[in-house]
Amino acid sequence: MRIHDEFDFIQKIKPQSHIHREIVTGIGDDAAVFSPEHEMNQVICVDTMVEEVHFLKNLSTPFEIGYKALAVNISDIAAMGGFPTYFLVSIAIPPNWNEQELLGIYEGMKELASQFKIDLIGGDTVSSKNQLVLTVTVMGEVEKKKHCLRSDARAGDVVFVTGTIGDSAAGLSILLNKSTASSDEVKLFLTSRHKKPKPQVKAGRVISKLERASLNDISDGLASELNEIAEASTKSITIYEELLPLSPELLSLNSEERFNWALYGGEDFELVGTTSIESFKRLSRQLESELIKITKIGQVTDGPASVHLVRQNETIKLEKSGYNHFKR
Amino acid sequence: MRIHDEFDFIQKIKPQSHIHREIVTGIGDDAAVFSPEHEMNQVICVDTMVEEVHFLKNLSTPFEIGYKALAVNISDIAAMGGFPTYFLVSIAIPPNWNEQELLGIYEGMKELASQFKIDLIGGDTVSSKNQLVLTVTVMGEVEKKKHCLRSDARAGDVVFVTGTIGDSAAGLSILLNKSTASSDEVKLFLTSRHKKPKPQVKAGRVISKLERASLNDISDGLASELNEIAEASTKSITIYEELLPLSPELLSLNSEERFNWALYGGEDFELVGTTSIESFKRLSRQLESELIKITKIGQVTDGPASVHLVRQNETIKLEKSGYNHFKR
Repeated sequence: MRIHDEFDFIQKIKPQSHIHREIVTGIGDDAAVFSPEHEMNQVICVDTMVEEVHFLKNLSTPFEIGYKALAVNISDIAAMGGFPTYFLVSIAIPPNWNEQELLGIYEGMKELASQFKIDLIGGDTVSSKNQLVLTVTVMGEVEKKKHCLRSDARAGDVVFVTGTIGDSAAGLSILLNKSTASSDEVKLFLTSRHKKPKPQVKAGRVISKLERASLNDISDGLASELNEIAEASTKSITIYEELLPLSPELLSLNSEERFNWALYGGEDFELVGTTSIESFKRLSRQLESELIKITKIGQVTDGPASVHLVRQNETIKLEKSGYNHFKR
Repeated sequence: MRIHDEFDFIQKIKPQSHIHREIVTGIGDDAAVFSPEHEMNQVICVDTMVEEVHFLKNLSTPFEIGYKALAVNISDIAAMGGFPTYFLVSIAIPPNWNEQELLGIYEGMKELASQFKIDLIGGDTVSSKNQLVLTVTVMGEVEKKKHCLRSDARAGDVVFVTGTIGDSAAGLSILLNKSTASSDEVKLFLTSRHKKPKPQVKAGRVISKLERASLNDISDGLASELNEIAEASTKSITIYEELLPLSPELLSLNSEERFNWALYGGEDFELVGTTSIESFKRLSRQLESELIKITKIGQVTDGPASVHLVRQNETIKLEKSGYNHFKR
């Protein structure tokens, strides 16, 4: 699309109304203005997705691309124990994307935005030469002193993870025709986990109410996220392969890659963290009542910042990244 | 640069200390957390600059590119009457940019950040295929109910502009070898106006203290910005060519393009707005004492949303854009 249509385009993506009354002015001026809640701290993050690096136009619909670009940022807010409030979208548009496709991207974001009750309050629309580049900034809130840091792991902590892991990488493998699903249901489940990840805001909110917890979202892979916690907290983390929560769908692929996907695949956007044994008991009960799966996968000890995996009788040091797929 | 160096790179760009004590956590976790001032509203905006669309590697140094990417966003905060507080940088890096160049971009932002006392609190670092894409999100604050909107023009208002206009477009014309400066001083002045624009935060702060003012920053050109004010306020604006503040350096080029540059060139990042005759008198006195130039260039009347230019005995309707250079 050519950028001389910018004004019309902005009119089409501009929300007709806002969910939050705290918005003083949204899209349509030089900047957005809002009135933050007094009792809360503000949380902010930004992520960029680049065509041919993070997504391929022939593998994902515009709707899915928009959905995911917003989801990965909401996930970052969840990983701080916060909830999202506002978002801004900066989009660099190459000539080969038409207006309908671009509106599809915003539709995908809209679905997720309405689900999480967040408002689009600003952005930028520019031209690019070759690839579409989508940058989403998300704001959120968290109660003062209740945000969850990577540096809050302590010796004796339980290491936990929400949901199941490895599904996203398995889904990508199916999309790239490197793996075959045994049924359409399995294929749909795993590819949806890759294309439409669910940010774990609800779990993050429960975790933020604990006395203390370290927390990360799984964007780069479990091994990488645990290394970040271990480094930030200067603690040693041990996890057990047999405890890793793999979905029946992932297991049904019967692939030798399944643990690689779980450890290094990333993009599951589940939460991984640590907390005291006592807090973990409370957390498990509370998430169970919300029908959110949470699994103990290991423990934290004093010792040099490192992550180890126990596989049968073997202990393997987990580095930040094990293998790379087409994404960075 | 390849992205496997991401961690090292982030360590290099991470600030050693913060100016604002309200930062709870900056770079290094999933999102940044800060504690906003109670009395203030939050202001937020985002802008993207794309290589070969908004800048050319052979015309600008990395330092200048970084400087400008931050400047254009600070200018948006200024255009709301606010002051900037924090910023986040999302950068998509193609293989042909090396680390030294990339650090140069951050150095350029650092200079401006230290000038405006704002902190880098987050961002994202990803790969791109061909062009460098730089997205900057800036947060700021403005006193409640004191932000300046485009929709606040009233009949009888004075139309004003800060500084001089057209310099940036003239500077670009010199950079592209389409115009020739009579001296090195003139060349340096005009090209600096294009490459290192000064966001008019101080003027914006004084304007925000007035009883009422409409306000825009000149990014897309005077004609475009005035049309935005006219449309948002549903008012008619008339300006006078002979009143337009052109710098001696611009005039020295003796180019027939000078009024085109002033009206349509854009990227001057001066402020343009309207306020009552009485408020304008006060504003002029206050800015004069701060050595900031401000010029009355026309007036607001009731009538259909439109902008007209009086040129000698002729009245010309000014459309949003008149001509395009290599930028969007």
